[in-house]
Amino acid sequence: MNCSLCATTCPYLPQWMRKSTKCRSWVRGSRLLIFQLNDIKTKFKKYVVTSTIQCVGLRRKEMSQHKPTESVQWDQGCIGTANWGGTRLCEFLEAAGFKKENSNVKHVIFEGLDSDSKNGNYCTSISIERALDPDCDVLLAYEMNGKPLSRDHGHPLRVIVPGVAGARQVKYLAKITLSEKEPNSKWQQLMNKAFPPGMDATNLDTTSMPAIQEMPVTSAITNLMEGDTIKLHGGKISIKGYAYSGGGSPILRVDASSDGGKTWHTANISYHHKEKKYPHHWTWSLWDIKLPVLAAAKEVDIWIKAVDSSYQTQPETVGHIWNIGGNLNNSYHKVKVKIEA
Amino acid sequence: MNCSLCATTCPYLPQWMRKSTKCRSWVRGSRLLIFQLNDIKTKFKKYVVTSTIQCVGLRRKEMSQHKPTESVQWDQGCIGTANWGGTRLCEFLEAAGFKKENSNVKHVIFEGLDSDSKNGNYCTSISIERALDPDCDVLLAYEMNGKPLSRDHGHPLRVIVPGVAGARQVKYLAKITLSEKEPNSKWQQLMNKAFPPGMDATNLDTTSMPAIQEMPVTSAITNLMEGDTIKLHGGKISIKGYAYSGGGSPILRVDASSDGGKTWHTANISYHHKEKKYPHHWTWSLWDIKLPVLAAAKEVDIWIKAVDSSYQTQPETVGHIWNIGGNLNNSYHKVKVKIEA
Repeated sequence: MNCSLCATTCPYLPQWMRKSTKCRSWVRGSRLLIFQLNDIKTKFKKYVVTSTIQCVGLRRKEMSQHKPTESVQWDQGCIGTANWGGTRLCEFLEAAGFKKENSNVKHVIFEGLDSDSKNGNYCTSISIERALDPDCDVLLAYEMNGKPLSRDHGHPLRVIVPGVAGARQVKYLAKITLSEKEPNSKWQQLMNKAFPPGMDATNLDTTSMPAIQEMPVTSAITNLMEGDTIKLHGGKISIKGYAYSGGGSPILRVDASSDGGKTWHTANISYHHKEKKYPHHWTWSLWDIKLPVLAAAKEVDIWIKAVDSSYQTQPETVGHIWNIGGNLNNSYHKVKVKIEA
Repeated sequence: MNCSLCATTCPYLPQWMRKSTKCRSWVRGSRLLIFQLNDIKTKFKKYVVTSTIQCVGLRRKEMSQHKPTESVQWDQGCIGTANWGGTRLCEFLEAAGFKKENSNVKHVIFEGLDSDSKNGNYCTSISIERALDPDCDVLLAYEMNGKPLSRDHGHPLRVIVPGVAGARQVKYLAKITLSEKEPNSKWQQLMNKAFPPGMDATNLDTTSMPAIQEMPVTSAITNLMEGDTIKLHGGKISIKGYAYSGGGSPILRVDASSDGGKTWHTANISYHHKEKKYPHHWTWSLWDIKLPVLAAAKEVDIWIKAVDSSYQTQPETVGHIWNIGGNLNNSYHKVKVKIEA
């Protein structure tokens, strides 16, 4: 299984790949191109892109408290931001002789070297339009924060697709296929979709929803956990967190409430990547707020929601977006804390 | 005042304009270009674009029931879809000699001939990137559904900006200015923004939020009104409506509930514009559903929400997105009806 944000080493990666310096790329048609990783590193300009990667299963654990879901029960931590260095996929495809106007290609399929026993190698795709658009910054990345990729982050080569689900940003890249169709892999056809709330294992229609590419606006508190006991400072709680929207949309605003949404206070944005603008803005915003609470409160239910540059905002209730895969839980982040007497 | 979807004649339009066949266009710098409308019609290729136009004040009336808002109290009707025929703005600007690479231009400002006594001519802007991108289909339109524009729709020439707020789609177009800055008009700086819920006339910071361009996903029921008495057919209510998302995102799905969100049913999409795909899909989807209700129900509270191609969905509660301007009420559409005994 390929997970774009594994914090642990990947048990599926074959031993030989751990020392590999080769990279193969296959372009559909009559040509099989074998590239050396060193060629990718030296024969193309290196681009560095700051991009947030978010797992579609972010905050799945909360969704499962409404009704059980499948797969890893992530909390709010499977998201991160780094500077990725590598070759632009559009320049690589151009060098390989690919021309969109002479083809029926609609999808670029990435296959990793990691695999599971049932489903073979990890395999998923993005649209050819995104792959070819230089402004979309899709990279064949070999560096993270100025250093060669570690094994956990996809050594020696991975795909970075800014603004898109982590599931599409394949690690241990082994093969690129240009195709008229999406791959039949479970990662494209089943696992990374958000089905309707009325659909579960008994009535699942996997064709009813498309694979998640760009993702909805979300936010989370990172300095407080459910059930924490905290001290007030001047009648206020200090809260920090992140907010992110897919598809290149920057965050406009983060709203916080301590009274069940009756009143909302606007957070301070402490980090915002200024270089890139909508629709090519790829990073989270970091925020903080000193949120006032009622003087007599012994317990406070903190609610957070973000608004992105299209004024899209988060849904309030997790049950209304519940899906069997437990994906895209972007409901308000709600954390209940106790106040120290 | 310019309103892109006036169903009534515009009282602000000067008499002479009603018979005008001329169109003036001014490009910033040393050049003043005077174009004849006939030249725009005959010297450029005509493009026809199917596009939905939505007022930012759609369903403002419901928002005002939570807490009063300013401006016209629209219901769910200030949205519509038509085939717009005209000249591509990018080709017009190219013919006028404009080159992005030699300029600091960031915004294209449109000025209409309609005015009010306090604020002068209607005036608003879009980004230069959107104006120059042929795939964004921005038009100087002189036809609607194959006929010359009527006065109500902006005769003789108006702007069509697919995927963007109606407020930017200026009617009775008189002047185009290329500028480094957005215009200072109230329509750009004040009226068409969605401020935070905690901001009202007492603490309004007009710089805190940007002008609305692309808009969030929304939906509405169109065949039933609050308080209607209806007849069940086989224990079900027949419901119809539209769903739309800005920014070129098609609708993935419409969900309906008759039990306060405990169970959700997926609607049938009866109209969907297939020719254009994300991120260049400009039209609403029409949907219908036969929604089951509890056998003993005497009254049913119907809830509708849509999901767009980035899996963005609607917020549940109008109070959490309330803003003093009453803009972008894209909360669930909730309609309570009585069941005929």
